[in-house]
Amino acid sequence: MQAIVLGSAAGGGVPQWNCRCPVCRLAWAGDPRVRPRTQSGLAVSYGGEAWLLVNASPDIRQQIAATPVLHPRSGSRHSPIQAVLLTNGDIDHVAGLFTLRESQPFDLFATAGILDAIAANRIFDVVNPACVPRREVRLEAPFEPVPGLLATLFPVPGKAPLWLEGEDPVIGEVGEGTVGVMFEADGRRIAYVPGCARVSDDLRQRVDGVDALLFDGTVLEDDDLIRAGVGTKTGWRMGHVPINGAKGAIAALAGCSIGQRVFVHINNTNPILIDDSAERRHVEESGWTVAYDGLMLDFAMSAELAKASPE
Amino acid sequence: MQAIVLGSAAGGGVPQWNCRCPVCRLAWAGDPRVRPRTQSGLAVSYGGEAWLLVNASPDIRQQIAATPVLHPRSGSRHSPIQAVLLTNGDIDHVAGLFTLRESQPFDLFATAGILDAIAANRIFDVVNPACVPRREVRLEAPFEPVPGLLATLFPVPGKAPLWLEGEDPVIGEVGEGTVGVMFEADGRRIAYVPGCARVSDDLRQRVDGVDALLFDGTVLEDDDLIRAGVGTKTGWRMGHVPINGAKGAIAALAGCSIGQRVFVHINNTNPILIDDSAERRHVEESGWTVAYDGLMLDFAMSAELAKASPE
Repeated sequence: MQAIVLGSAAGGGVPQWNCRCPVCRLAWAGDPRVRPRTQSGLAVSYGGEAWLLVNASPDIRQQIAATPVLHPRSGSRHSPIQAVLLTNGDIDHVAGLFTLRESQPFDLFATAGILDAIAANRIFDVVNPACVPRREVRLEAPFEPVPGLLATLFPVPGKAPLWLEGEDPVIGEVGEGTVGVMFEADGRRIAYVPGCARVSDDLRQRVDGVDALLFDGTVLEDDDLIRAGVGTKTGWRMGHVPINGAKGAIAALAGCSIGQRVFVHINNTNPILIDDSAERRHVEESGWTVAYDGLMLDFAMSAELAKASPE
Repeated sequence: MQAIVLGSAAGGGVPQWNCRCPVCRLAWAGDPRVRPRTQSGLAVSYGGEAWLLVNASPDIRQQIAATPVLHPRSGSRHSPIQAVLLTNGDIDHVAGLFTLRESQPFDLFATAGILDAIAANRIFDVVNPACVPRREVRLEAPFEPVPGLLATLFPVPGKAPLWLEGEDPVIGEVGEGTVGVMFEADGRRIAYVPGCARVSDDLRQRVDGVDALLFDGTVLEDDDLIRAGVGTKTGWRMGHVPINGAKGAIAALAGCSIGQRVFVHINNTNPILIDDSAERRHVEESGWTVAYDGLMLDFAMSAELAKASPE
């Protein structure tokens, strides 16, 4: 099983088009301590022939161009991308669908709640359902988005997409709107949770024992945006648990057995994006990796399975 | 007056994510004869302080990153992009609006027809109208999208966006759905017509005498896509007049007095994208330039105006 982080940043990317927070200023200046990063996305495959995109970021065209295994391989029209799975309806996870219009067949998987949000907007018809069937996935029901890869959606505490927020949005709701994905192949497991408002007991139990967890690293502290002087929203208000603090991801997941811990969906304001920062060192010393675009995880068959099937 | 071609390709860009037509194959292989190109967009300014984007392509984040004059300049949040103008509702011209969500104020200009198409899709609310006012522009009524720059929309023969097409779409309709723009400053004029189904007498009269015309170069011949083996649609069916032929752009505009003739919105299947091709030579020998991303036009005050205002 292979997984490639196509985009490691949260909405806006790094640098964000209109931002001069301390991290973006370094990025605009070309400072090598801040790697430019595109918006949130993952590609997963079993065997490398067919690939699943988890979410379609607005930067998907650039991400495909930067990732040779996703280039077309034969004939006049082709793509190894055979499926797309959405984990919520946020712009940074769905706007890339518009780029995937081109009469190229693939399966679009999401919960009913997410598919409904899309269906309510006629502009998504440009990704013609006759060519790109929309396949409803139920929570907790394993399915096989591409051959050999098993995926299971599970609910995590989240928030409605910004464009569907009402006057007083509910934060931390657990339902079909925000999900995590457990991938499984050859006895190995990768959990992908790019958006999560709170680390619940349920989440802790699920990710205990996985080979890798790629988790929401949007904000370091709940008040990152306020500190950076670029906004008034807390992490909680945006539906993202902080990395630090007593209820933050590092502390809340410390007791779990996890092979590799990787922060993804990192907002441009987050100081862990600066290579030599104290915040980066703290995160790494806590056993976490800060994802970058192109980071690849490659898991061979588990030792247990290999023993059971000696040839 | 300055104009920068941010994206010189049609929808899909070069290479297109799922395409292996002869041009895309060279691009995927990194052949230097085919420059990669992003999707259709232009930036225009008078004086370089404030910029208007004409259309917002899905590649807008990458285009801004590649264009230093569009980077934020001061404070914690800023952008020199003060306005966006849409010339139709095609995905390659509107999907970039989603990237421009970030509570950054700018004016969004378009005809009522185009604004209505957008308003019908709630997902565009992410570009909050309280922050990004939608300003209806009437055909033939000059307005000033950014200080010092005069713009006038005029109708050109076009087609409804793919995502609003019915069973039997009308091609070549002249109305509010597809427009060209005439820019004027300091006695100089640039006409921008990235989509046009037919060169009409009206169009010929309008562009006669301009300093530059940037015109629809989607297809070389009406059957480009069929020849390339990637589709069944003709240029006409997609709402684009060919470059060649008795009614093509080169012939139909040959009698007009035009300072610089530039093809933009060039589809990945168009062989003029190959630097040393016979097709490229033919177009250049006919007096036309093939646009590339970053191409800049910079017009000082006209001689007539300079004479009239000696200091």
